[in-house]
Amino acid sequence: MTAGPLRVGLAGLGTVGGGTYTVLTRNAQEIRRRAGRAIEIVAVADLDQEKAKALTQGRCPIFADAREMLAKTDLDVVVELIGGYGFAKDFVMAAIAQGRHVVTANKALLAVHGREIFPAAQAKGVSIGFEAAVAGGIPIIKSLREGLTANRIEWVAGIINGTTNFILSEMRDKGLPFDTVLKEAQRLGYAEADPTFDIEGVDAAHKITLMSAIAFGMPVKFDQAHIEGITRLQSIDIRYAEQLGYRIKLLGITKRQAHGVELRVHPTLIPAKRLIANVEGAMNAVLVKGDAVGHTLYYGKGAGAEPTASAVIADLVDLARALHAPIEDRVPALAFQPAQMQDMPVLPVAETQTGFYLRLRVKDQSGVLADITRALADGGISIDAFIQREPAEGEDETDVILLTHTCLEREMRLAIARIVQLSTVVGEPVTLRVETFA
Amino acid sequence: MTAGPLRVGLAGLGTVGGGTYTVLTRNAQEIRRRAGRAIEIVAVADLDQEKAKALTQGRCPIFADAREMLAKTDLDVVVELIGGYGFAKDFVMAAIAQGRHVVTANKALLAVHGREIFPAAQAKGVSIGFEAAVAGGIPIIKSLREGLTANRIEWVAGIINGTTNFILSEMRDKGLPFDTVLKEAQRLGYAEADPTFDIEGVDAAHKITLMSAIAFGMPVKFDQAHIEGITRLQSIDIRYAEQLGYRIKLLGITKRQAHGVELRVHPTLIPAKRLIANVEGAMNAVLVKGDAVGHTLYYGKGAGAEPTASAVIADLVDLARALHAPIEDRVPALAFQPAQMQDMPVLPVAETQTGFYLRLRVKDQSGVLADITRALADGGISIDAFIQREPAEGEDETDVILLTHTCLEREMRLAIARIVQLSTVVGEPVTLRVETFA
Repeated sequence: MTAGPLRVGLAGLGTVGGGTYTVLTRNAQEIRRRAGRAIEIVAVADLDQEKAKALTQGRCPIFADAREMLAKTDLDVVVELIGGYGFAKDFVMAAIAQGRHVVTANKALLAVHGREIFPAAQAKGVSIGFEAAVAGGIPIIKSLREGLTANRIEWVAGIINGTTNFILSEMRDKGLPFDTVLKEAQRLGYAEADPTFDIEGVDAAHKITLMSAIAFGMPVKFDQAHIEGITRLQSIDIRYAEQLGYRIKLLGITKRQAHGVELRVHPTLIPAKRLIANVEGAMNAVLVKGDAVGHTLYYGKGAGAEPTASAVIADLVDLARALHAPIEDRVPALAFQPAQMQDMPVLPVAETQTGFYLRLRVKDQSGVLADITRALADGGISIDAFIQREPAEGEDETDVILLTHTCLEREMRLAIARIVQLSTVVGEPVTLRVETFA
Repeated sequence: MTAGPLRVGLAGLGTVGGGTYTVLTRNAQEIRRRAGRAIEIVAVADLDQEKAKALTQGRCPIFADAREMLAKTDLDVVVELIGGYGFAKDFVMAAIAQGRHVVTANKALLAVHGREIFPAAQAKGVSIGFEAAVAGGIPIIKSLREGLTANRIEWVAGIINGTTNFILSEMRDKGLPFDTVLKEAQRLGYAEADPTFDIEGVDAAHKITLMSAIAFGMPVKFDQAHIEGITRLQSIDIRYAEQLGYRIKLLGITKRQAHGVELRVHPTLIPAKRLIANVEGAMNAVLVKGDAVGHTLYYGKGAGAEPTASAVIADLVDLARALHAPIEDRVPALAFQPAQMQDMPVLPVAETQTGFYLRLRVKDQSGVLADITRALADGGISIDAFIQREPAEGEDETDVILLTHTCLEREMRLAIARIVQLSTVVGEPVTLRVETFA
């Protein structure tokens, strides 16, 4: 077999770019045995010329400007590992315009500008591979797009940000507050110097937005996602959750409802007996519910040089195996045929349905619990479990913690408005959402 | 879009066949939106004509003989859900000879006769889809064949038989012996009237054989797999394992070593903190180690009508999305290009490497543990942990339980031969293998 190589232009030689170069080199033979042709990096682009030289050792041309690489090199596919929405977007759009396939790990770019990028690629007959954009090396995009095609997908829920999962695991294991653990995570390299995108849930929202599109066949609607991070989460709630048999994880969730889809990121209580509740440290996992297959879960490293490179290269092998196939014979980038995408409204968070965890500061007197449960019952909300702490010596206030069954968030807000009016309730309640994944 | 339908002939209307018909009907629209064409069952075959009529309601012709369906119907693909090696093999070979693609859930057929079937399909330019043959609805074949193509796969280990996992979960939860739980499993429908293939590990061996082929690019070598079931497993060893922080699971394992591959099925101790150790009941999970991606795990229902149908239909959608693509543009059935398959020897079990669990009946006298550890140390085997039980009132014998670090099985056998010679050791030791998946 002497099929010509897949000619790759690699833009961005940071962690993932370097990993991609390394793995493609180390496993060249194994990859070729699978792909039926060599996957050859014929050019690289990075502002840091010295780094590029050290990596490539003179084996291919180096460009400072990725657009120049595109203009001057005969490429089948560009791998965009530059990141961000600015230059990366111009570069990806230019590659598409030139009829080059694109493989990218850039979840932010696709979640924010996907409604422009995917149709442009379709119009030019090129593919957009983004396995590396969600959950690193876990083949979750392929599983949703190709592995579960028999199913009407009901929901997808994932631990899809390793930084926050590491922080939450440490907070639980060591009983430390968020700020302390964040500093430790930064020291260990699990959190960036500016951790905003991770800890505020933005990165997870990018990823769940992409999964909502391929799960339901709808356009990306990142701008309508409800996003809460973990910065306000307190250790005491992790402990109370534990006592109730739950773990708290930052989840990205997208769920099909009768009149639209839920699209949200927030700290979530999950029963400790669920497999996904036991995903610790910087690991990722995605749980998918399909009507035929039931629950399936996908677990692995969600970041890092080689795990992410594994996903980038899987997309390249898909291209290499059918390099000259027409676009009609390729798996649609968003799982559904482009003409078959359907606009579905994203529900306001008030219309989403979850269970709730409530921590209330109350006066230590009789009838408190009865007042609270009545306020909930008046809104049609029933209680699943509760803890009432004994007040500390000499205190006249204590904590009441409640878990409710599923209700509309709107109903819960009304109930809380009634609860804070109660003379026995002190200060603002802490609320968290609960998912049981039954 | 008016692409013609994918014309499917469905042979075998048992549990999975019925599920496939049901899901294809119920989700026809969603599947078509993804596949770009309808997937149409244009004929079915089953000996039970009444069942076939009840299912199809006159919507397609019914044949008693699947070969007659093949001869008389214009098909793109046959779905073989007949089972067994006899008629099913003739039917599959006939379908290939006629240039029909094949989708099958028949792990036994492919594991035993794959060296004949896969090359025949390749020669005729048709594909063999067998996602449904391993771990039901979990897209593990696709993940190995397409999702992890960047990697040199180091090993694959799976809980790939739901019956035995259900039995082991019940034995642990309820402290009941194997025979009792087996009867309960039969009553609940988790075990068949003749459970031999499940409880003796044969079914798991079929599946791990198929995964070894696509993980390493080697031919199927079921005849060389080492197979042990769970029939001799005692509840006491499940309890001792628990005390040591381990769970016992029936695993199929295939592992790359310097001079060949390990291919084996046996009860295995796994650290309880590993995610795969917490897969309970009839659920399946497969853990894969790749050199780039690290550990990934895939979890879901490994059997049942609709979960297995989910996998059958995923293979049909793959075909439908690129119906007229030449075989060169298709993903190779065994992950590696046919010309790139490499024969790799399966190592004799004596040459495999695992840790070991030993339960020894010993006289209650001093120096016993020293004698045993010396016998192990003489073979270069080191001890990871042990329990020495206090003898019961009035007994002069007791149990010693040891966990060793990894060694060659051959070395362990020699050490055991020395241990049983010790005057302080009574009767035959119980040995089980240990995998830490570090």
